[in-house]
Amino acid sequence: MLSEACAIVRETRSVIEAALEKGFTHRSKADGSFVTDADIAVEEKARTLLASRFPAHRIIGEELPEAGGGHELTWVIDPIDGTKSFRHGVPLYGTLLALLHGDAPILGVIDLPGLDRTYSAARGLGARCNGRDVTLEDLPGDRALEKEIIGIGDRQQFVSAGRPEVFDALMGAHPAVRTYTDCFGHALALQGAVGAMVDFDLRLWDTMASKVLMEEAGGRYVCFQRTGEELRDSRFDVILGKPRVVEWILDRIAAQGGDRGSPKQTPGGIS
Amino acid sequence: MLSEACAIVRETRSVIEAALEKGFTHRSKADGSFVTDADIAVEEKARTLLASRFPAHRIIGEELPEAGGGHELTWVIDPIDGTKSFRHGVPLYGTLLALLHGDAPILGVIDLPGLDRTYSAARGLGARCNGRDVTLEDLPGDRALEKEIIGIGDRQQFVSAGRPEVFDALMGAHPAVRTYTDCFGHALALQGAVGAMVDFDLRLWDTMASKVLMEEAGGRYVCFQRTGEELRDSRFDVILGKPRVVEWILDRIAAQGGDRGSPKQTPGGIS
Repeated sequence: MLSEACAIVRETRSVIEAALEKGFTHRSKADGSFVTDADIAVEEKARTLLASRFPAHRIIGEELPEAGGGHELTWVIDPIDGTKSFRHGVPLYGTLLALLHGDAPILGVIDLPGLDRTYSAARGLGARCNGRDVTLEDLPGDRALEKEIIGIGDRQQFVSAGRPEVFDALMGAHPAVRTYTDCFGHALALQGAVGAMVDFDLRLWDTMASKVLMEEAGGRYVCFQRTGEELRDSRFDVILGKPRVVEWILDRIAAQGGDRGSPKQTPGGIS
Repeated sequence: MLSEACAIVRETRSVIEAALEKGFTHRSKADGSFVTDADIAVEEKARTLLASRFPAHRIIGEELPEAGGGHELTWVIDPIDGTKSFRHGVPLYGTLLALLHGDAPILGVIDLPGLDRTYSAARGLGARCNGRDVTLEDLPGDRALEKEIIGIGDRQQFVSAGRPEVFDALMGAHPAVRTYTDCFGHALALQGAVGAMVDFDLRLWDTMASKVLMEEAGGRYVCFQRTGEELRDSRFDVILGKPRVVEWILDRIAAQGGDRGSPKQTPGGIS
């Protein structure tokens, strides 16, 4: 299933390339974010390919209604994570695909067409990037922490999560906190290019792949779930990366008063 | 000279590829920034190629002593702008080459090996990326401003410039201010992917290429120079991009008390 998932995601690149060549339209969604016709075309292509190979499985995607309920395996698709980047011509967007067993992610793929990189992992099988093993080494000690880069989402995500002070505190506490948003930041955390990525107010499809990828790469993935009525309505605040860097970030967040056990941020079943 | 400059910069890519393949060492410089042996090897290669084609010209580079004084034409090299990114494996670094006539930049090249993009321009000849014309369109009006992305340097650069409040104010004033640091942010501004780039506390070699590139692309380049004893000691605070976005940023900076004519930030001869 892992090799099928990689092949399916890479097949969607042709849709993205065609959109970049011919142009695409976009519109605002109800939540204020954007969707392009390329997002929808990528999701349609991934769904068609998934349905042909795994006809019984359930499929949840960002842009289209859920399909095939009832099966214990669910594919979760984010077509063009980083639509804002894609729309503006910043080549740091990607397509995400995860497979859940019940509520637990067991397989994840992050594909970055603009950088020609495909990260993939499945529970117990390790993590890879373009076929090479990805193994994350922890920092040797806290002294090395200030030499790291810390990845972070847009400040607006922290505003939406009701936690702008977390963004501001991290920016002030470390000399190199950079907004490497979306799956690009997650990919940098996987390869250790950033010490950790702090990404708040995510949806299911933004983060399920990263959990498997990070844990299989040997890093730490921490998720605070704010539960919605349905799984697709929940919000996820995640920190993922080298264990010592994740721990340092958790301490900074706790110092901002929103400690790990606050009512607003309780670790969810999925984490 | 423009085509020679492009060829020279692209020839240095082999040095970078070799370093990525074989590994490289790094050390801290007196100013706290890092240099790798790849930085030095790239500058040496560029100098050798420049000296063979333009033996009389002066050469200033970030890592090695000035050469060939006395000529009115000066080549300015930044080998691997974004060393922090390069060292950590973030593929958003680049090599910069500019040609000054007296103090005025007349030719500029930004090469991004990790993205396979070469931006080039010379006074009166227009700007190009990988051979395609680059033309920047201004915003149709201020209403469109919040849909833009704003690029910005690391907060630490603003601390070094004595202006962290500028960074914090911009982060709070716009929903998508992103730290697309170094020449990657400048390149995004050239192609209009970010509405503008705000980059403080730069050195000569960080910004001379961008002035020519941005003006030839039809955008606006504003520079506040804090003059050092010699040109290579000066610091440059620059804003470059779509004219309406640059104007909006200048207004936000002025609102922080550091207006455009403050003693600390006087427009320099080079701007």
